[in-house]
Amino acid sequence: MTGNIIGHFINGETVKDSAQTQDVYNPSTGEVSKQVSLASKATVEQAITAAQKAFPGWRNTPPLKRARIMFRFKELLEQNADKITKLIGEEHGKILHDARGELQRGIEVVEYACGAPELLKGEYTKNVGTNIDAWSDFQPLGVVAGITPFNFPAMVPLWMFPMAIVCGNTFVLKPSERDPSSTLYIAELLHEAGLPKGVMNVVNGGKEAVDTLLHDPIVQAISFVGSTPIAEYIYKTAAANGKRCQALGGAKNHAIIMPDADLDNVVSSLLGAAFGSSGERCMALSVAVTIGDEMADKLIQELTQAMKKLKLGAYSEMSNDFGPVITKQHKDKIIGHITSAEQQGAKIIVDGRQTQVSGYENGFYVGATLIDHVKPDMDSYKAEIFGPVLQVIRVNTMEEAMKLINDHEYGNGTCIYTRDGEAARYFCDNILVGMVGVNIPLPVPVAYHSFGGWKRSLFGDLHIYGPDGVRFYTRRKTVTQRWPSSGVREGSQFSMPTL
Amino acid sequence: MTGNIIGHFINGETVKDSAQTQDVYNPSTGEVSKQVSLASKATVEQAITAAQKAFPGWRNTPPLKRARIMFRFKELLEQNADKITKLIGEEHGKILHDARGELQRGIEVVEYACGAPELLKGEYTKNVGTNIDAWSDFQPLGVVAGITPFNFPAMVPLWMFPMAIVCGNTFVLKPSERDPSSTLYIAELLHEAGLPKGVMNVVNGGKEAVDTLLHDPIVQAISFVGSTPIAEYIYKTAAANGKRCQALGGAKNHAIIMPDADLDNVVSSLLGAAFGSSGERCMALSVAVTIGDEMADKLIQELTQAMKKLKLGAYSEMSNDFGPVITKQHKDKIIGHITSAEQQGAKIIVDGRQTQVSGYENGFYVGATLIDHVKPDMDSYKAEIFGPVLQVIRVNTMEEAMKLINDHEYGNGTCIYTRDGEAARYFCDNILVGMVGVNIPLPVPVAYHSFGGWKRSLFGDLHIYGPDGVRFYTRRKTVTQRWPSSGVREGSQFSMPTL
Amino acid sequence: MTGNIIGHFINGETVKDSAQTQDVYNPSTGEVSKQVSLASKATVEQAITAAQKAFPGWRNTPPLKRARIMFRFKELLEQNADKITKLIGEEHGKILHDARGELQRGIEVVEYACGAPELLKGEYTKNVGTNIDAWSDFQPLGVVAGITPFNFPAMVPLWMFPMAIVCGNTFVLKPSERDPSSTLYIAELLHEAGLPKGVMNVVNGGKEAVDTLLHDPIVQAISFVGSTPIAEYIYKTAAANGKRCQALGGAKNHAIIMPDADLDNVVSSLLGAAFGSSGERCMALSVAVTIGDEMADKLIQELTQAMKKLKLGAYSEMSNDFGPVITKQHKDKIIGHITSAEQQGAKIIVDGRQTQVSGYENGFYVGATLIDHVKPDMDSYKAEIFGPVLQVIRVNTMEEAMKLINDHEYGNGTCIYTRDGEAARYFCDNILVGMVGVNIPLPVPVAYHSFGGWKRSLFGDLHIYGPDGVRFYTRRKTVTQRWPSSGVREGSQFSMPTL
Amino acid sequence: MTGNIIGHFINGETVKDSAQTQDVYNPSTGEVSKQVSLASKATVEQAITAAQKAFPGWRNTPPLKRARIMFRFKELLEQNADKITKLIGEEHGKILHDARGELQRGIEVVEYACGAPELLKGEYTKNVGTNIDAWSDFQPLGVVAGITPFNFPAMVPLWMFPMAIVCGNTFVLKPSERDPSSTLYIAELLHEAGLPKGVMNVVNGGKEAVDTLLHDPIVQAISFVGSTPIAEYIYKTAAANGKRCQALGGAKNHAIIMPDADLDNVVSSLLGAAFGSSGERCMALSVAVTIGDEMADKLIQELTQAMKKLKLGAYSEMSNDFGPVITKQHKDKIIGHITSAEQQGAKIIVDGRQTQVSGYENGFYVGATLIDHVKPDMDSYKAEIFGPVLQVIRVNTMEEAMKLINDHEYGNGTCIYTRDGEAARYFCDNILVGMVGVNIPLPVPVAYHSFGGWKRSLFGDLHIYGPDGVRFYTRRKTVTQRWPSSGVREGSQFSMPTL
Repeated sequence: MTGNIIGHFINGETVKDSAQTQDVYNPSTGEVSKQVSLASKATVEQAITAAQKAFPGWRNTPPLKRARIMFRFKELLEQNADKITKLIGEEHGKILHDARGELQRGIEVVEYACGAPELLKGEYTKNVGTNIDAWSDFQPLGVVAGITPFNFPAMVPLWMFPMAIVCGNTFVLKPSERDPSSTLYIAELLHEAGLPKGVMNVVNGGKEAVDTLLHDPIVQAISFVGSTPIAEYIYKTAAANGKRCQALGGAKNHAIIMPDADLDNVVSSLLGAAFGSSGERCMALSVAVTIGDEMADKLIQELTQAMKKLKLGAYSEMSNDFGPVITKQHKDKIIGHITSAEQQGAKIIVDGRQTQVSGYENGFYVGATLIDHVKPDMDSYKAEIFGPVLQVIRVNTMEEAMKLINDHEYGNGTCIYTRDGEAARYFCDNILVGMVGVNIPLPVPVAYHSFGGWKRSLFGDLHIYGPDGVRFYTRRKTVTQRWPSSGVREGSQFSMPTL
Repeated sequence: MTGNIIGHFINGETVKDSAQTQDVYNPSTGEVSKQVSLASKATVEQAITAAQKAFPGWRNTPPLKRARIMFRFKELLEQNADKITKLIGEEHGKILHDARGELQRGIEVVEYACGAPELLKGEYTKNVGTNIDAWSDFQPLGVVAGITPFNFPAMVPLWMFPMAIVCGNTFVLKPSERDPSSTLYIAELLHEAGLPKGVMNVVNGGKEAVDTLLHDPIVQAISFVGSTPIAEYIYKTAAANGKRCQALGGAKNHAIIMPDADLDNVVSSLLGAAFGSSGERCMALSVAVTIGDEMADKLIQELTQAMKKLKLGAYSEMSNDFGPVITKQHKDKIIGHITSAEQQGAKIIVDGRQTQVSGYENGFYVGATLIDHVKPDMDSYKAEIFGPVLQVIRVNTMEEAMKLINDHEYGNGTCIYTRDGEAARYFCDNILVGMVGVNIPLPVPVAYHSFGGWKRSLFGDLHIYGPDGVRFYTRRKTVTQRWPSSGVREGSQFSMPTL
Repeated sequence: MTGNIIGHFINGETVKDSAQTQDVYNPSTGEVSKQVSLASKATVEQAITAAQKAFPGWRNTPPLKRARIMFRFKELLEQNADKITKLIGEEHGKILHDARGELQRGIEVVEYACGAPELLKGEYTKNVGTNIDAWSDFQPLGVVAGITPFNFPAMVPLWMFPMAIVCGNTFVLKPSERDPSSTLYIAELLHEAGLPKGVMNVVNGGKEAVDTLLHDPIVQAISFVGSTPIAEYIYKTAAANGKRCQALGGAKNHAIIMPDADLDNVVSSLLGAAFGSSGERCMALSVAVTIGDEMADKLIQELTQAMKKLKLGAYSEMSNDFGPVITKQHKDKIIGHITSAEQQGAKIIVDGRQTQVSGYENGFYVGATLIDHVKPDMDSYKAEIFGPVLQVIRVNTMEEAMKLINDHEYGNGTCIYTRDGEAARYFCDNILVGMVGVNIPLPVPVAYHSFGGWKRSLFGDLHIYGPDGVRFYTRRKTVTQRWPSSGVREGSQFSMPTL
Repeated sequence: MTGNIIGHFINGETVKDSAQTQDVYNPSTGEVSKQVSLASKATVEQAITAAQKAFPGWRNTPPLKRARIMFRFKELLEQNADKITKLIGEEHGKILHDARGELQRGIEVVEYACGAPELLKGEYTKNVGTNIDAWSDFQPLGVVAGITPFNFPAMVPLWMFPMAIVCGNTFVLKPSERDPSSTLYIAELLHEAGLPKGVMNVVNGGKEAVDTLLHDPIVQAISFVGSTPIAEYIYKTAAANGKRCQALGGAKNHAIIMPDADLDNVVSSLLGAAFGSSGERCMALSVAVTIGDEMADKLIQELTQAMKKLKLGAYSEMSNDFGPVITKQHKDKIIGHITSAEQQGAKIIVDGRQTQVSGYENGFYVGATLIDHVKPDMDSYKAEIFGPVLQVIRVNTMEEAMKLINDHEYGNGTCIYTRDGEAARYFCDNILVGMVGVNIPLPVPVAYHSFGGWKRSLFGDLHIYGPDGVRFYTRRKTVTQRWPSSGVREGSQFSMPTL
């Protein structure tokens, strides 16, 4: 298998590191399919140096020219979508249609990046004082880095580097070492679109690579998406090294089901939001909070019926609804959460712990699971399960429901199902969560707004992509200017022209 | 009475025109209280010339300094609110609390104008091409003019001149000749706040004054608020003279009362919206469209009860709800509309035609009137009545109600009463009206948004005050700049610094 | 030649009008090459009706989907650039490289239109009052029309319809009947990019077509680019019909050559700016104002030398610098201006009146012409010549030069050549011109700023394309919203959550 | 002296801590004038709790009402300017006119805060998908804290709390314990302006107070201005506690004097920029870099002459140019830097080490000092001296000068003196400094732009006050909303209205 080692992409070329490698699995079959080279400190520094060298030229390239590479990049991503989604499916396990959806959300950020000339406009004031002008300009930072998780190997990197690069920065990306192939291929397409060498670099690796990025003084900023403990580590380490940082962490996204909710809409949208991509999404809807037992009973009944039709299986079969989870270890962890809920008194309504996929017996599958009568003090409620598990909490009032959400450590996404304008407005205003849906289960902001949670779901000031992305990847410079008369302009009695 | 002639305010001084005068009434008593001087063409030109002379200096005054005069102006308006409201009440007839409300909305525009340094920021782009920068700057137009109606002698002028002046223009205002005193006093306060002479000028007058403003080539822009036929004349005449123009006209504002509306809220808010200021507001709510006869019957019943408590009388008594209309002629016109509705088949539920106010028998009073079973082809429905008359149209569906509104020639304001998110969203999206309320009867935009109707309620591109006000009163200038090397900067091998 | 009649493009299909036709020339040869069908009132109404029918569906298409058609349109314009530039060259006469430049500037507006989701963002305020929210939304107008000139058959239409359409409007374009083929082909490409039928329509025609657009009540707005007398007619007629309008007219663009100017840069850039496209550009630089006779003499000398190398000829030869003018009549008019200057006392330094192009003796050619000692009272100075004629005015001070520019009826473009910061800043601030260059001879704003002149070069409030384009093609709607409690949300004692 | 102990301002009342106190000096006389109470952890927590309790009510107060308190606050600051400046002068030592200037720059931020309703507008999108809308809203963070330095006891706090508070946050300020009286008095005025209790709190103290603010989980954000080592500690500690932070540190601000500079302007503006407020400003201009020895010699000569006229003395004498430094220790440190420069080979041209002020022999005075032939490796060049010391470095090219600046650890402010457009543009674009002046020695951005350095002069993403201030003190919330039909709206066949 030595011929099949995934390397790094540095200065426009594939580089292999002579040090360690790690297995890459096909989760649908449970087999090791490739090996990935893990970057040593020296290899990461090579990438940083390449980025540093590319910076002066790239920074001085007019924004419109930078944007035109993004226009071309969008075309190439669309033309090569099948190849990208296959690479995602093979290494991540998500079904091809889901991988295509992921790619599409990433492409939308590229589309937004195409508007760079507008997005980078500064502010100009004539006469801050008599004959004194001032303007603020948003300049790139230099070399910036991204560290991304396994669950969206295409989309999450695309949240970062198109914005960073179109703003004039150069980039070093460390994607997840579990499913790096689609990410690397996308980086190659960006070069095919005309990006100069060294502007975009990808290194695979583990903690050594991460720490090199965090400590190297050339790196100006870090964008991170992953779990909260790591996000916290990234944020504080980056700060201790004087860098700016946005670190997005975990989530526990609740839906409140109000008594006036449109139940058909609730059921159909919860299925996708809870079990799509096996729940391995930071915006997965993992807790349904019902107001009143009547709604709870109806919901449980309808969901139970609907879940029977869900189809679990390998990534390559388009009729499947969702696929395996990322590793055997993660499968065991999810099953442990379900069992813990059961032991602590919750009721397992639909149990996916034993689900098998015929012909793929070694794949890392967990069936869709529905748990009723969950309580806030259960371990399965406190943790982010990141699996196809939907937990139901029954409360009597919207107040109780909102208190649950506001007391939880995470504040990434949430939604309410209601037809009532007042309830929705109150919820949106007062809920301590960054991304809020009204009758929308996965309120991921579109690419021209920005993505980010509150509380321990995001560390930093600025959200990711959208207008905040531009601001994160640029540095304000304010110029104040006055010109002394130099006599070139004759005739000081010249009177002010008037209309 | 010759000693009591109201003059003009030109170049910081009161000026009287030797030509015509016109009576100014106290509508609460029906008596002539003052005379107003009507400006001849020469007097208007004197004001335009003063404004033209003041322009160069004012234009070059830094925006922050211009804004500081607005800060001071706000203080003076607040300190002198009692005097202003009394002047409004005496000549217009609205109750003092209503006049105070009017003034407050005007002050809010002054508050907004205090933010001029932010509002006037231009757009700056480094590197539109290599080493070529560009920026857009919003420069004042020069001399601009406002022509305002009798119904808000303080507020409507304040919608215009604070924005125009803080943007660096100089101004000529022609307020209504029916109630000019509060307007003139406000102009004096603006000078007390530190405005240089000639920047703000007020001329009273009639068509000769208006036409002088419309034809004088020095005047760069016209803001107008009044009736639609005049707005149309102003717009086309200004355009034929090459000027920019925003001309706000009439209205017929409908409220849709949905079956799920909060009836208490409907009734209490309709009272104020229909009868406040005797309905002499371009945002008055003059038509209630009920969905279903059940709602209609309840509404008629509740309104009839509530209208019994309305108190009509002189401007000076704070316990009155509303006062007289502006003139005897206008009173007769309103009564004519009521009679016409009756004759064409509508049912007069509460009849204000004969209402008398004891002790003020010669005042121009019309009582609050409620008319049911109004039909779209009645003359009283097609016209803007501008009196304390609420007409009810009964329909069966929201579709019918929206069609009524969308087919009407005016599109100023409208509102819907409902608790349903979907109904409200559909209404807001699809109604052809510029200012829309959801459970808000008078959806006048706050000063930091902009005011303007659609269809024949506004002629022009830009709404009045708010961000559109800034844009209307400024002209974009775009500079593109490249510097040739002149050898002052030695060392051409200087390499780009990097972080 | 009946087989070669150019028709209209209505509702996605080519339509021919049975009425009149007009000759279309190949100016390089002087021969009639095609005939163009001139739309009757009925044909124009057919286009308006198609646009009206397409509006509801297009308006409701999400901005991102509308933008994606622009992404695809850009690709098609680039892929078919050779065909487009050939069509331009054949009918207009400009050299292919110049036509490619024109197309490129047009494509840049399409690139800007791709950012529609960002550009169409409205303004949102929570709590304009307690529990009352307000937002402003920018909605499309409906059917809008464009009327465009012969000199940029691709670029000027592209300044308008991509912006109008991406904002949700539907469009009727009346291009110049002299060179309509490239325009029609571009409209076809837009449909190939996925635009629904009826959203974009093109009618060829003359005054009847124009007047139909100006008078039809369905048409909401008019964008016009052409000469000032027509712009004035368009503006006042559109306004008299209650429409919004931006009408761009003529120009007389001056360059001030300061004593410290970089002469090499002046000479090389003036050549292109004065003679490129035979001076048939509203941004052509047609007057050089020299400060001091020393600079004037040097400039005349260097220009005379440099002009010897200019190559005049047919559109199809890439080595040519510029080509014929649009018609025989226009050629005669240009020659008349040169002769008039001569008769009124100016000195013809380089005379293009007799210039012949070998092999193309019937083409409409005028050679590059340089005239010295022009005075402000000469007819050739007052008029827009729109030919390859550069006039030099000698003055002694920058003050005199600025007075010339500020006194001229036009205020489209201007530039200054200097190395001095103070002179440039004073010029930019005080010159009464909308588009200003510093060492840039043709300061056409990039697509993400906006294009527009001052004084009699533009009638209306808003410039064309860029941010102003978005504002011109949308109508502000402001919603103010309050929700009454409906009891769905239980537990009124619910206390505000805090962080 | 026990009667003269300065306390804290918590929940609208003055509170004294029973723990430690520290001496407050009058630097002009060198005498202890007061004692300041140093807050224990418990006292700081009391302030935090007060702020936390005040948050829900303040957050829900409409922005316009919050802004109106700022309008009133501005008036009170202006009315009480004499008292504030006297308090500054007594404890800091700067001359009254300088204190008035400081206050004015602070008031400008209050003026900017008055525009909160405009500044807090969110972004609104109709139809992110069909019938799905989204908006982003900028909500306050909760309790936020500021930690401010001795050198601007009024201005730097005013950079922070008006912005934080008008955005809806509640505030705990820890000003410098060396000169807290003006800060406390300003906080009282803010309450007099109508601020509810607990919204603004001031605690005096040292490291215990700082660490309590940094570690308390209720505090959401920290703004800091001070020296770089402390800024670095604040930034990393705040981040380790999951907070957002902007930490502004030290500076070494260079002016480049080009050969074409206007020498009179250079000399007069350098005097104020180098010696004003004894150089105790983070924007003080402490290094002049001359291009060419000719300019250096002339500059030294002119400066030497001009410095003779500088008047040093007590804060209370308006004719003084500058006053004492803050402490005896700081005076000794400054003298140490001068001596070190001398020992390392620089030439002391004007020596302020022995300067005495008659009648104030114990005051902490250092005279204006000019040092020539400074080299980059000298300790006095590397350090921020924060005293009335101007060092001159002689280089031969602009390249060398820019390299010096770009290599220095700080990147706060800088300026260039030139008349040449190209040199200025190159400098502004390529210098690695956040605030840049062209012929402006102290390029402090006006209140409606934002203040912040680059490199080790600022840790964090967002600059202080201005637009960045709004963004720093708010958290983005993005709502995505879809309404299911609920049947309230009858007539599903309702067709889209069209214009």
